[in-house]
Amino acid sequence: MISGIKPSGKPDLALVFSEVPATAAGAFTTNLVQAASVIYDRELLKRRESVRAIVVNSGNANAATGEAGYRAVLDTARLLADLLAIEPEEVLVASTGVIGVPLPVEKIQAAAPQLVADAAADGSERAAEAILTTDLVRKQCALSAVIAGKTVHVGGIAKGSGMIHPQMATMLAFITCDCAVAAPLWRQIVRRAVDRSFNQITVDGDTSTNDLLVALANGEAKNSLIDDPHSPQAELLEQMVTAVCIDLAQKVVRDGEGATKVVEVQVKGAADDAAARQIALTVAGSSLVKAAMFGNDPNWGRLAAAAGRAGVRFDPEKLAIRLGTFALMEAGQPLVFDRAAASHYLKSAPTVVVFLQVGEQAGTGTAWGCDLSYDYVKINAEYTT
Amino acid sequence: MISGIKPSGKPDLALVFSEVPATAAGAFTTNLVQAASVIYDRELLKRRESVRAIVVNSGNANAATGEAGYRAVLDTARLLADLLAIEPEEVLVASTGVIGVPLPVEKIQAAAPQLVADAAADGSERAAEAILTTDLVRKQCALSAVIAGKTVHVGGIAKGSGMIHPQMATMLAFITCDCAVAAPLWRQIVRRAVDRSFNQITVDGDTSTNDLLVALANGEAKNSLIDDPHSPQAELLEQMVTAVCIDLAQKVVRDGEGATKVVEVQVKGAADDAAARQIALTVAGSSLVKAAMFGNDPNWGRLAAAAGRAGVRFDPEKLAIRLGTFALMEAGQPLVFDRAAASHYLKSAPTVVVFLQVGEQAGTGTAWGCDLSYDYVKINAEYTT
Repeated sequence: MISGIKPSGKPDLALVFSEVPATAAGAFTTNLVQAASVIYDRELLKRRESVRAIVVNSGNANAATGEAGYRAVLDTARLLADLLAIEPEEVLVASTGVIGVPLPVEKIQAAAPQLVADAAADGSERAAEAILTTDLVRKQCALSAVIAGKTVHVGGIAKGSGMIHPQMATMLAFITCDCAVAAPLWRQIVRRAVDRSFNQITVDGDTSTNDLLVALANGEAKNSLIDDPHSPQAELLEQMVTAVCIDLAQKVVRDGEGATKVVEVQVKGAADDAAARQIALTVAGSSLVKAAMFGNDPNWGRLAAAAGRAGVRFDPEKLAIRLGTFALMEAGQPLVFDRAAASHYLKSAPTVVVFLQVGEQAGTGTAWGCDLSYDYVKINAEYTT
Repeated sequence: MISGIKPSGKPDLALVFSEVPATAAGAFTTNLVQAASVIYDRELLKRRESVRAIVVNSGNANAATGEAGYRAVLDTARLLADLLAIEPEEVLVASTGVIGVPLPVEKIQAAAPQLVADAAADGSERAAEAILTTDLVRKQCALSAVIAGKTVHVGGIAKGSGMIHPQMATMLAFITCDCAVAAPLWRQIVRRAVDRSFNQITVDGDTSTNDLLVALANGEAKNSLIDDPHSPQAELLEQMVTAVCIDLAQKVVRDGEGATKVVEVQVKGAADDAAARQIALTVAGSSLVKAAMFGNDPNWGRLAAAAGRAGVRFDPEKLAIRLGTFALMEAGQPLVFDRAAASHYLKSAPTVVVFLQVGEQAGTGTAWGCDLSYDYVKINAEYTT
């Protein structure tokens, strides 16, 4: 939907609507500088377990806007609630775009009746389009599975191409699911899925003022309520949500500013999963590793050194490193390998896999990053000049 | 001195020697993957307070080399000790260069007699040259002041152009001082100086396996021993050491790979100095801030967002940002400013000053970084291919 908030005249308004109250879970930026909508949504989801709508605009981030910005969020929720005949407390608000300017509620007000009228079960593609800013491609994913005799669906849309790009971008994701699931369990599932997906991707190490994920589960699949975290049903649902989140997160990385390849870093043998994830994310986020990946350089030294500064204890004498099928290091010592072939692998694989074994414990984790290219510098240096 | 460890045939061996035992303080990389010389020096300085020599080679980092590498360090210390007629325990060893290959002690052995014969009071410039790898310029600094009636000198040399560059670079610094100072106080002074200088610079966020600073104070100024941390003498000495360290650290940043400008980030009003330093370092290290600086883009949003993710609590509603003399933000809200003039400031100032006021408390801190240029990517992507 086009409200005119974006000067380009591209679609900039989207609505996610559930005809029945949907159990809601949210994940929000950890940045201290937070957009008004992030503050609003976080508070709202502390007070209540369910919502029915999310309204998203991609033209104005409504960050660093003080009280005027917060009032604009309240006004937006109220006007959508009126049109949808629900309570304002049932509407979440998400924003991305220009910062430092309060949300122009009048433009949302003018466009909202049509936005509501256009809402449709098959509207995911249009919504995926309307939330984009500098993204080159839409990011969508859908899965279904039979849980306890009922077909359950999990779908999602996301946007983001730099982890932050304050005047024009951010990372947003919306997950919808028709499963009946208890709120505490749903929130736990979503938190764990986010920890293994969106919290494990890095484009440039910067986090936005507007980063936000909301996941809704509305029970329309009519399955019997899942509320036992140890049940196979809960496990399957978590796998579905995690898979959708990982797929969307990888699509964000692949669309990373200037990226020519995705780098998947797998870590095994750490003390626990969180430690493994931290090592993986540090390696994926290292500027020197990213530049080496861009240059197709199988540089085991940079991989080892990045792992070593992750802030997680491991025995460097046990470190083993593989790049695709090429073994680069074993027991902390470099190996002889076919450098040209490894470089060719880096050049040709759309997703490069880096594998690090850091010990013999059970912790595993994966992170996804992209390479650091001339175009990243170009996109981010020549933004306003 | 040229030992031939560097294939280029450039100077690659340096010696720092004190005719009398010198009180020694060290600061070492926090990377888990550590060069043999770092492990050796750290252990040695736990056992003893004084040393007399530091031997440095800039052709071979001797990292990821296991026991053979450690033996090479012991052999190097022993052979220098023999030539200098001191104990092996009085020799520290520092290395940078290729990793994964044990130090070729035979080359050091062949060159060492000449290295010792060439040692001279005015040899600082040659030493500053011999420790370089990818650096474009030598980094030296010297200061003197009268402390309690005696002239005291503090000098230093450093190398580094990426925080890490495992196959060819690292950050090394050697500080010499002729002051008589008690060992515990000297170590405290050096630690505090390093925290305000070398620990506050960032080129790419990566730390090396070989980063090391050693500071020697040999008492040849014949001043009466400084041992009271609260004395004006101790304060003046700390100011001198800090000034030398900051000067050298800034020179490392200015020589940062691909850097076209130095960015000095000053933070005031934080809960304490450590918090202020952390915010300053996060802002100086943000890829998006660095790219904006390269593009001469006075992007307050990226500065605010980077401050907000530093992991330090402050009230974003109190955030004020200045760029040189341009006020960009006040009380968390953007201001109207002359964008073209601010961009021109970014283009023309050799050191760009970013100032952030994050509250009204007493904590202050400064960090230095450089911009992120096409050349950084080029230097680090095309290293081996």
